[in-house]
Amino acid sequence: MIQFAWEGWWMADTYSFLSADISQYNIDAIEDAELLMITLHNFEAMLLQLPIMERYFRILFQNNIISKERRLINTISYPAEEKYRRLVATHPEMVQRIPQNLIASYLGLTPETLSRIRKKLMQS
Amino acid sequence: MIQFAWEGWWMADTYSFLSADISQYNIDAIEDAELLMITLHNFEAMLLQLPIMERYFRILFQNNIISKERRLINTISYPAEEKYRRLVATHPEMVQRIPQNLIASYLGLTPETLSRIRKKLMQS
Repeated sequence: MIQFAWEGWWMADTYSFLSADISQYNIDAIEDAELLMITLHNFEAMLLQLPIMERYFRILFQNNIISKERRLINTISYPAEEKYRRLVATHPEMVQRIPQNLIASYLGLTPETLSRIRKKLMQS
Repeated sequence: MIQFAWEGWWMADTYSFLSADISQYNIDAIEDAELLMITLHNFEAMLLQLPIMERYFRILFQNNIISKERRLINTISYPAEEKYRRLVATHPEMVQRIPQNLIASYLGLTPETLSRIRKKLMQS
């Protein structure tokens, strides 16, 4: 599980989109969703015609990098229970809205490990 | 260990740079290096004066996102030995050039675990 996207977000396999190579991943809607799509051709045409969109996407990508850096640090720096605690503290809406098996995959844990952690936290 | 940078790369705590907030991380030179620096003020002035740099950094940030996505997948999807094997296969120059304790931290492993994996791989 690489990423969750919320209302108003763009979502792509960035490598696949930009290289026009086949994606190794799926994008699943876990709730009903209305989607806007853009092709690479139209994305590039838009950037050439509207330079302000270069700025928009440069800033959007900057923010994406910040969020990916935080997630990476969380993933490599903490033991399993602490990872889940931090997710609950920083993204409570994720824990409420997203099925537990996807949360486990997002944290790089098995569903069994996550289930054990949740039981322990609920008891304490 | 969040990231290694090579000759010709830009390196920053993206959040700290853009928010002008204190960084939680250090940037260390592990080899002698000659550095160019840019302040946030000058970075923004450059982007406003030279719109082509919006495009340059938009593309650079895209590539950074691709590389961070790959690393994240590697980190959450594979057991310790497979993580190290994949690093050797895709970035042999990192394994040759960077001290083992930093490689361990980059992979989210203890130095002891990495040392055990390397011994095992050398024997086989």
